Amino acid sequence: MPAETMDELVSLCKRRGFIFQGSDIYGGLQGTYDYGPLGVELKNNLKAAWWKANVYERDDMEGLDASILTHKLIWRHSGHEATFSDPLVDNRESKKRYRLDHLLADQKKDVVAAVAGKIAYGEVENINGLVIALMANTEAAAKALNEAKVVDPDSGKAGNWTQPRPFNMMFKTTVGPVEDEDSYAYLRPETAQAIFVNFKNVIDATSRKLPFGIAQIGKAFRNEITPRNFIFRVREFEQMEIEFFVKPGEDDDWHKRWVEDRLAWWRDQGLESDNLVPYQQDPAELAHYAKATVDILYRFPHGLEELEGIANRTDFDLGSHSKNQDTLGLTAAVAENRSSTAKLTIADPETNKPIIPFVIEPSAGVDRGVLAVLTEAFCQEDLGEGKERIVLKLRPHLSPIKVAVIPLKKNDEGITTKAKAIKRDLQALGMGRVFYEDTGNIGKAYRRHDEVGTPFCITVDFDTLGMGEDPALKDTVTIRDRDSMAQERIKVDDLERFLRERLR
Amino acid sequence: MPAETMDELVSLCKRRGFIFQGSDIYGGLQGTYDYGPLGVELKNNLKAAWWKANVYERDDMEGLDASILTHKLIWRHSGHEATFSDPLVDNRESKKRYRLDHLLADQKKDVVAAVAGKIAYGEVENINGLVIALMANTEAAAKALNEAKVVDPDSGKAGNWTQPRPFNMMFKTTVGPVEDEDSYAYLRPETAQAIFVNFKNVIDATSRKLPFGIAQIGKAFRNEITPRNFIFRVREFEQMEIEFFVKPGEDDDWHKRWVEDRLAWWRDQGLESDNLVPYQQDPAELAHYAKATVDILYRFPHGLEELEGIANRTDFDLGSHSKNQDTLGLTAAVAENRSSTAKLTIADPETNKPIIPFVIEPSAGVDRGVLAVLTEAFCQEDLGEGKERIVLKLRPHLSPIKVAVIPLKKNDEGITTKAKAIKRDLQALGMGRVFYEDTGNIGKAYRRHDEVGTPFCITVDFDTLGMGEDPALKDTVTIRDRDSMAQERIKVDDLERFLRERLR
Repeated sequence: MPAETMDELVSLCKRRGFIFQGSDIYGGLQGTYDYGPLGVELKNNLKAAWWKANVYERDDMEGLDASILTHKLIWRHSGHEATFSDPLVDNRESKKRYRLDHLLADQKKDVVAAVAGKIAYGEVENINGLVIALMANTEAAAKALNEAKVVDPDSGKAGNWTQPRPFNMMFKTTVGPVEDEDSYAYLRPETAQAIFVNFKNVIDATSRKLPFGIAQIGKAFRNEITPRNFIFRVREFEQMEIEFFVKPGEDDDWHKRWVEDRLAWWRDQGLESDNLVPYQQDPAELAHYAKATVDILYRFPHGLEELEGIANRTDFDLGSHSKNQDTLGLTAAVAENRSSTAKLTIADPETNKPIIPFVIEPSAGVDRGVLAVLTEAFCQEDLGEGKERIVLKLRPHLSPIKVAVIPLKKNDEGITTKAKAIKRDLQALGMGRVFYEDTGNIGKAYRRHDEVGTPFCITVDFDTLGMGEDPALKDTVTIRDRDSMAQERIKVDDLERFLRERLR
Repeated sequence: MPAETMDELVSLCKRRGFIFQGSDIYGGLQGTYDYGPLGVELKNNLKAAWWKANVYERDDMEGLDASILTHKLIWRHSGHEATFSDPLVDNRESKKRYRLDHLLADQKKDVVAAVAGKIAYGEVENINGLVIALMANTEAAAKALNEAKVVDPDSGKAGNWTQPRPFNMMFKTTVGPVEDEDSYAYLRPETAQAIFVNFKNVIDATSRKLPFGIAQIGKAFRNEITPRNFIFRVREFEQMEIEFFVKPGEDDDWHKRWVEDRLAWWRDQGLESDNLVPYQQDPAELAHYAKATVDILYRFPHGLEELEGIANRTDFDLGSHSKNQDTLGLTAAVAENRSSTAKLTIADPETNKPIIPFVIEPSAGVDRGVLAVLTEAFCQEDLGEGKERIVLKLRPHLSPIKVAVIPLKKNDEGITTKAKAIKRDLQALGMGRVFYEDTGNIGKAYRRHDEVGTPFCITVDFDTLGMGEDPALKDTVTIRDRDSMAQERIKVDDLERFLRERLR
């Protein structure tokens, strides 16, 4: 029973310290979020699981962690300067500005159909198609929006729309002491390009042969016009991206393998339900450089939306960032590059001649991943007799806290000393965060740890010290299972084995 | 025998894939670096060691991971908008711009003495003191620089200096679709402020009592005029910061404890030599809000410079970000704040009344930490007979690769299958990256893994398969120690125990 509304997730995240609005005490900075004490653990655990599966457990992958501030020429030659834009439209009366696709998605169906009718577009199966048609003639588009009485969501009034125009989503900043036309750089809008421009550095340092990949986790920034849906569409976010380089001709097979691998990985993160849906893009939807793209969609509380995209980008990217492009036998149409100092080639495994490999790109959102696992894990359980509990049924490897150690009395030195020693010993096993929980109220502690997804709570009591009624209980503790709520008495010496088995 | 020149480190880092210049193929973006396949592991290992020691192994710490894009009001009320600047001076002839302190540090001693003499400053013990005096009267400063014949390092010519002026080091960017005077935000120049502004969110979510701390690792950005010394002074860097909140009166004790803790931690990272030096700032050097600051200096190849600072910041920060400041009994002088929506107070542990705690801030640089451990670990060893080797004597927990598994023949299926199985089994132990090294040349593999600091190399050969001369060697491998270069034969089944003992 995953979360049904975003509100219940947002509320839990704030209350329990997963995620806060960024710059909160100054009214917030829209589209930015701060990960709190539990959120940072959950996010780091998800990233570590990805790195383990994609770097450590493979023999064909290298890691990378490149800078966020990047030379403008990277984004000129990647195509982002010219085309990484959203269609914007202004309302003359309210002075509000909207992303055209979001504005249309907010309208009633008959209004959207009327917009399409005004430009003779036909039936609207997909808002993006309509938006592309509108942007092809922005004068006609303004007329269509106004005549179809598109409503301003802010004011509730129809009409008064300007011509839509493209708005570049990259954040710019001035680098160095001189503020002139030339001294700007971009905050990267994706981590992928840093992999392409480091291709030669990585193969020179590692002597990699095809096929192999480069994996990177890091922040990226997009100046979204209308950030929305909590951490789903934000201005600052984190990506987990792989560029996997293969010999041309082997690309279709590798694309299929990566789609399967990535679906399996997301299932390993607990997204087992039919909320996880692979979606093969139509040829008409594909980006101009892509030969094929499969999106992995997840049924978030606000709808079925993209969690990851796996694209076959051919030789477009390495070709675009190379010099002497006409000598490279590229299949992709690339813009001329007179700035790059490198030919991003690698030896063909058979002929040993330098070639530009094809690339398969599995590109996932960290924050969207966090939102998906929170959605899936969220559970409101009826306990009977009018009681209920919220429990986050996270996979143990993702849980922010693996074990909570609770002293029955927070002021009894014998008990707290023993509890702290158990905490310290379990922490030293290196299985993640073990939490010393000294609220002194067992019921409250269980409730809290159910809500934050702690798989096990251990209670240290007078029996543990050999001071209870049954001396045989000395050096035992109560361990409670989050999902079944079952409690059992277990020897302290057996805790390591018990937890190692269950926290894998 | 740590590294003696930065060049030998830079060269190793590029050659072996630790660190590359950012935006390299487009001529580089000054002050940015990309961590390559080994650099990302080393950096992540250092960050994980810090998080383990400061969050997991303590019972008085919470974690945080806040956004980089931040509301301008945070930096107005922190004081950064007004004062986070460097003194800049232009040369009229070369059109070059310099940081005044760096310019003076590049001059001959008698020139610096002459500058001081022109403004009647007296003996120069510390360039920063002289710079402060120069900035107090910038007209006199220009005159002094010109009359003392300060040389432009670019052109080599003396004179032609403008008046110095303060230059704010924060990167600005426009957020949202409207580019007007009000729609900018800053890239955070430090992670610390995000901890202060989340103080209330964190205590509401965790019910923490004094004393406790909040720890954060993340990127920060400073528009340095003259980035230099490899990854030491850069425009994009990473910090590991703690804000530890204590009851006023207990701050001096906690400050001392944190200095000791942090020194011990750096020693645990291998900085054992007398290259690690604590330095107590003079009252005259202290920032205006600080009651005491101890810098931990490290003898980098370019000099003895700051690796970490541990400051007693009193109640300045939480006070500065609070509303209704006059009701809070602050000891620090803070600017009025009419924008904050929160009082950043916590209950006094004795009286239970709301107070603003004092804060101890241990603030370390991740990249500087990486540079320090690389410097310390770098070793050029004479092997006799005119042979030498470079070996990175990293502590095993920091090594990018823990174990390399090397098949003796890269084309023998029996050997490679066995080697891959051993790699997979060791990888599953969760001790970090295990590397399948199929160069097929043992000597080359040893040299490479010495240079990147891999503690152990395991070689799989025909004996391992039971196909050598001595059948008793079946299921054994050769394991080679990086530091002693000693090799021993060990059972495959004993590898786990052997490595667990040595990789702690």
